Amino acid sequence: MGLFSKPIKSLEDLFVHMLQDIYYAEQQIVKSLPTMVEKASNAQLKSAFSHHLGETRTHVKRLEKIFDLRGEAAKGVTCQAIDGILAEAKEVLSDCSDREVCDAAMLAAAQAVEHYEMTRYGTLIAFAEQLNQTEAARILGETLAEEKNADKTLTSIAQSRVNRMAAE
Amino acid sequence: MGLFSKPIKSLEDLFVHMLQDIYYAEQQIVKSLPTMVEKASNAQLKSAFSHHLGETRTHVKRLEKIFDLRGEAAKGVTCQAIDGILAEAKEVLSDCSDREVCDAAMLAAAQAVEHYEMTRYGTLIAFAEQLNQTEAARILGETLAEEKNADKTLTSIAQSRVNRMAAE
Repeated sequence: MGLFSKPIKSLEDLFVHMLQDIYYAEQQIVKSLPTMVEKASNAQLKSAFSHHLGETRTHVKRLEKIFDLRGEAAKGVTCQAIDGILAEAKEVLSDCSDREVCDAAMLAAAQAVEHYEMTRYGTLIAFAEQLNQTEAARILGETLAEEKNADKTLTSIAQSRVNRMAAE
Repeated sequence: MGLFSKPIKSLEDLFVHMLQDIYYAEQQIVKSLPTMVEKASNAQLKSAFSHHLGETRTHVKRLEKIFDLRGEAAKGVTCQAIDGILAEAKEVLSDCSDREVCDAAMLAAAQAVEHYEMTRYGTLIAFAEQLNQTEAARILGETLAEEKNADKTLTSIAQSRVNRMAAE
């Protein structure tokens, strides 16, 4: 979550702020994933990044649907956490001199992104339920399920191949 | 993970870099938690932050033990992700005007911290196992179990009380 644009006086204010935070984060992820697709050497990893790019574009649209349901314009606020995690991924690509190790580092960065999103969507769903915004909670739940699944896929790739290759 | 101080040529280099990253992160968390203990209104949340401060000091010592096992001086590297997550927590404390909502925001920030740590320790354990550093993997596993437990405690507090109070 980034800097608050206005005082947080209610759970509703906090909910909207966190929606804006994850809206910014999803947009940054959409911008970053094409480079990760391009740079990944392992075919499974490349495919996972590519698949998740399509999902992430849908996550952006789902957030726009929630803003629309609320009668508000979709708006993002700078999220320093996701900026930091993605800055790391860029560093990996510029500093890594072995392609298998580079894959392992990108995989680790992508899992950090997934975990950030999982905790944010988990909190947003809890807030939406407290605020009786059941349709928003349902839509956010669809995205959370996909983030969890993406993380599982990355774990499976790490265990099956990428880390073992990088250690050789 | 922050900026790489040297090229990453092997999984061993990446492992050491990520150890330095989480070492920095744990130290920043030790510095931040006392303020969260002080500012939390809900007694369960205050107690959870206080308990986790003690655990986090142990996590720092465990990382120093791993550096020691490797015959290296313990050293941190700036981690932009944790800096971003903790900057958010500070913002919450300065911008939040309702104590229950402030608790809900701190709880969300703390869960983002736990998830960042969980993904990092999970990756470090996978790397340690690939590199046949079984004692390091065992020590890292002790900390991962505590981070997961801290996250569960926070979820339980969120579900039982803090978010409901903030919505009233």
